[in-house]
Amino acid sequence: MKLLPERTVERLSQYRRVLQRQLDNGTESIYSHELAKLLHITPVQVRRDIMLMGHSGTLRRGYNIENLIHLIGQIIDCSGQQKIAIIGIGNLGEALANYLTENKTKLQLSAVFDNNMDKVGKIYSGIVCYNIKNLKKIVQRENITIGILTVPPSQANEIALKLKEAGILGIINYTPVSINVKGIFIEQYDVITSLEKVAYFAKPKNAAILQEGCK
Amino acid sequence: MKLLPERTVERLSQYRRVLQRQLDNGTESIYSHELAKLLHITPVQVRRDIMLMGHSGTLRRGYNIENLIHLIGQIIDCSGQQKIAIIGIGNLGEALANYLTENKTKLQLSAVFDNNMDKVGKIYSGIVCYNIKNLKKIVQRENITIGILTVPPSQANEIALKLKEAGILGIINYTPVSINVKGIFIEQYDVITSLEKVAYFAKPKNAAILQEGCK
Repeated sequence: MKLLPERTVERLSQYRRVLQRQLDNGTESIYSHELAKLLHITPVQVRRDIMLMGHSGTLRRGYNIENLIHLIGQIIDCSGQQKIAIIGIGNLGEALANYLTENKTKLQLSAVFDNNMDKVGKIYSGIVCYNIKNLKKIVQRENITIGILTVPPSQANEIALKLKEAGILGIINYTPVSINVKGIFIEQYDVITSLEKVAYFAKPKNAAILQEGCK
Repeated sequence: MKLLPERTVERLSQYRRVLQRQLDNGTESIYSHELAKLLHITPVQVRRDIMLMGHSGTLRRGYNIENLIHLIGQIIDCSGQQKIAIIGIGNLGEALANYLTENKTKLQLSAVFDNNMDKVGKIYSGIVCYNIKNLKKIVQRENITIGILTVPPSQANEIALKLKEAGILGIINYTPVSINVKGIFIEQYDVITSLEKVAYFAKPKNAAILQEGCK
């Protein structure tokens, strides 16, 4: 078996969300150009992705939405449930804990960790905060496989290594530090780069070029 | 003039950060393969980007770090200062306000907005929270060009359009809604897609393939 490219996984996740919204609104089928328009990508890209999912069937009325959602789930979801821990429960950690418990997802927030004794033992979005010293014990007991890293930058690499040693298989890194841990999947969320990217395209001269291209 | 591709701007931002850290540690020059290793990309990519910046000079001792940082700044920074507003000051908005005021960056957080009257008039990370009704007035008065959108999903498109009308040139969208506003740059940060992507690569079967590839 081969892993899908990262960009493809991202698009499948986005397709599913958009398709679910259509289904909730009572729509039963969709054409590739409609789905493409909803996601601001090309219809060719959509059709290629849908072929890759192994979809077949009549297309006179477009693709069956329920069928597509089911196919995407088979490809990107785990058969069992996947459990998440948040490490570092500052403002951002709290926002993410909130988000995870409020939004329906197949991923279950199972623990949060901090090294601040004022936070340890407290409840965040219904989840108890553990002492980071017990990271390995709790991760293994709860069978947590995904870690969200919202610790101070200086601790990022050390904690990422501990997460790997505890058996974590994937990390979302919200710190600005590049993590140097091999053998597990690391998704880097980089606030500064996002900001500098938007700032570049929002320079008045560049913004004028963008605007020109939209006319 | 042509705009740089998004990925290139991202890499330039990341190079600068890594280079600044090297400079702070007293290092004066760096080879492309060293810089590549720090960012987990190929030396060829690094050399191509540096050529694109118009760098020339002797390479016996590698690239001069101060020189590279200066070149990157000339390409991606605005000559004046760029001002930012955060719209929606919940947990995530607060975390970002904190981040922006605590970290040195050329971007200046100048206003936060909310429609909750309990928040209007309060101070967040030293910045006053305005009523969202006054968005256009404040954005124009302060000459704010970048908006960070952390409002509830149902309001995302409406507020994005208001930001554009107020003169905002770039938006970072932290809501899970795809924004349909043309003519300005929109950077989508998609929490769910990040999560589902990590979850895909952290499925035990997929994680095993990743690990195998690292041996």
